[in-house]
Amino acid sequence: MERVLRMKGGVGETSYVNNSLIPKKAIMKVKTLLDENLKMMISDTTFNSCWKVVDLGCSSGPNALLVVSNIMKVIDKISLSLNHELPAFQIYLNDLYENDFNTILKLLPDFHQSIQQERGENHGPCFINATPGSFYGRLFPNNYIDFFHSSYCVHWLSQAPKYSTKKAEPLIKGNICITRMSPPSVYEVYVEQFGRDFKNFLRSRSDELAMHGVMVLTLIGREKNGEITSYEALGMVLDEMVQEGLVEEAKLDMFNLPLYHPTIEEVKQMIEAEGSFTLQTLKTFKIGWDANLQEDIVDYVVDSNMRGEFIAKYHRACFESLLIAEFGENVMDELFSRFAKLIAQFIEIKSPDFFNIVLFMNKCP
Amino acid sequence: MERVLRMKGGVGETSYVNNSLIPKKAIMKVKTLLDENLKMMISDTTFNSCWKVVDLGCSSGPNALLVVSNIMKVIDKISLSLNHELPAFQIYLNDLYENDFNTILKLLPDFHQSIQQERGENHGPCFINATPGSFYGRLFPNNYIDFFHSSYCVHWLSQAPKYSTKKAEPLIKGNICITRMSPPSVYEVYVEQFGRDFKNFLRSRSDELAMHGVMVLTLIGREKNGEITSYEALGMVLDEMVQEGLVEEAKLDMFNLPLYHPTIEEVKQMIEAEGSFTLQTLKTFKIGWDANLQEDIVDYVVDSNMRGEFIAKYHRACFESLLIAEFGENVMDELFSRFAKLIAQFIEIKSPDFFNIVLFMNKCP
Repeated sequence: MERVLRMKGGVGETSYVNNSLIPKKAIMKVKTLLDENLKMMISDTTFNSCWKVVDLGCSSGPNALLVVSNIMKVIDKISLSLNHELPAFQIYLNDLYENDFNTILKLLPDFHQSIQQERGENHGPCFINATPGSFYGRLFPNNYIDFFHSSYCVHWLSQAPKYSTKKAEPLIKGNICITRMSPPSVYEVYVEQFGRDFKNFLRSRSDELAMHGVMVLTLIGREKNGEITSYEALGMVLDEMVQEGLVEEAKLDMFNLPLYHPTIEEVKQMIEAEGSFTLQTLKTFKIGWDANLQEDIVDYVVDSNMRGEFIAKYHRACFESLLIAEFGENVMDELFSRFAKLIAQFIEIKSPDFFNIVLFMNKCP
Repeated sequence: MERVLRMKGGVGETSYVNNSLIPKKAIMKVKTLLDENLKMMISDTTFNSCWKVVDLGCSSGPNALLVVSNIMKVIDKISLSLNHELPAFQIYLNDLYENDFNTILKLLPDFHQSIQQERGENHGPCFINATPGSFYGRLFPNNYIDFFHSSYCVHWLSQAPKYSTKKAEPLIKGNICITRMSPPSVYEVYVEQFGRDFKNFLRSRSDELAMHGVMVLTLIGREKNGEITSYEALGMVLDEMVQEGLVEEAKLDMFNLPLYHPTIEEVKQMIEAEGSFTLQTLKTFKIGWDANLQEDIVDYVVDSNMRGEFIAKYHRACFESLLIAEFGENVMDELFSRFAKLIAQFIEIKSPDFFNIVLFMNKCP
């Protein structure tokens, strides 16, 4: 999985760089929460002259730098309100080994220039590094990091469940994720995998976080069962292509997305059971599947076909690497063209959204 | 310069990855010196449970990981001899923003596996990061790094001198570097630029190095003036192409390589004048222009044409990005094909070599 999963690299039309407005919307929403919550969590006694800040799952687009810039602004603001000098920052951008780090690192000269202008004369220096590796294992020395941030990453699993508890049977026939028809046993297999991964995640971060450290996670969760997800729609298209002989049935049966969207209760229980972190604040918000679409095309009337296209492009940038590894590159255009049309139909009926969970945590003393 | 200079990325036939045997030879030579000198420089009192190690100018090839692995082995050995547990390592691979970091980061899963096997059961963890940016400025917080290493980088200047001291005249007509015919005034202009850069380099590293820290630099120097360099030969080919109308004369006149090979005395004086470091050991060694060629082709008789080709490929991987920016991509094949032939002729007469200087330094107390 680690060698296949990545957001689509480069700077082309279908790249993640050019199709990441939905996670951007989430980051902008969380910015306000950062402002409100961090000051409370960072006390005068934990003043740092150099903040070590990590974005986990930074991907290859400009969103990672938006996150970094938001965090620096908030910490600068807190430092000023405490009458401290503006601190230095040591930033670590993390993602899997196969992530397109080149694209993001080439943005850095311009980024340095822009933050220098924003932070003014008396700002401390900002040193930026890339840290490749899975966040389900260790990435940093003990007690080292002051601030962990991750947006739209922790719902990615380290591997996709394939079989039902009976072992011999494929977990999900005719789709690629939990669907509205899935029995509780499918949820159980997924939640087990999520639980294992999330526990490893929390344990690793707790080892790495300094005593006064803070972690902020944004992930997609679910409010209740039985709602359609965009992934179910993607699986429906693949099933349609199976019926037409364009995709092998056995491949569809054995392929599941390594994604799980937990409920608030599941997340809370897991954090408590793992025991390393104190959950300070939990917030939720919703953003439409086509959030931020209009940012790019203000002069046009946005009809459902265009919204379908937009949503399809975002999903393609996120999932293509996984889907190509299973189904081959030659069916991708057809798959996402059909997906765009299906989404356009859904949107005519109702406006579906992603349910976001934001978690503010401290390390337990 | 920073946005143009890079070793050739990717993993193709002409990539740096596949044409970096000459710097590899230098790294292997320095390995023995590391063994001999580090133990003396690292005392029992400066024991570290986590070593922060930097390779400055790591480029995109496997050499950077060879360096890292050599350094870890030496420090492990010293730790064992002092009856300490094997330390953890936090490694930073530095190069300019345009460097192909993706290629090197994708090698890391296999690298982690191989060092785990080598270091055995009780090894500490090893965390690897990429740190993009120019080493003529700051890259890390104050007093942060334990060990700086750089091989074949510090002779690269932050910019190439273009004009003679009279300003209006091009510094070097009909070539791209100091030649055997160059008057002292050309050396002066180059040595001034090298002096400014090297001073910035030493000042930045001294700020970043922890009190007990160590720095080891390998660079190409010159033993005496008036020897032909491989770059002079490359310039001769470009001049020949000017005569044939394939390259514009004005472009050749205004293009110089951002490279300076200092003498031992120049380096010593500059370190002393800058004042932040104590030079513990200075060693020199020579390696042939075609060093390590035979590693790849043991079953063949290596004639001068093959040696010429080999040397041309190495130079192409190093200089192509700069040369393309000035002379265009379409003359590169012709340029390096002629260069290979010219080098083959030189080699028939004598076996030229690179004069290497290795410097072991401590931060001044």
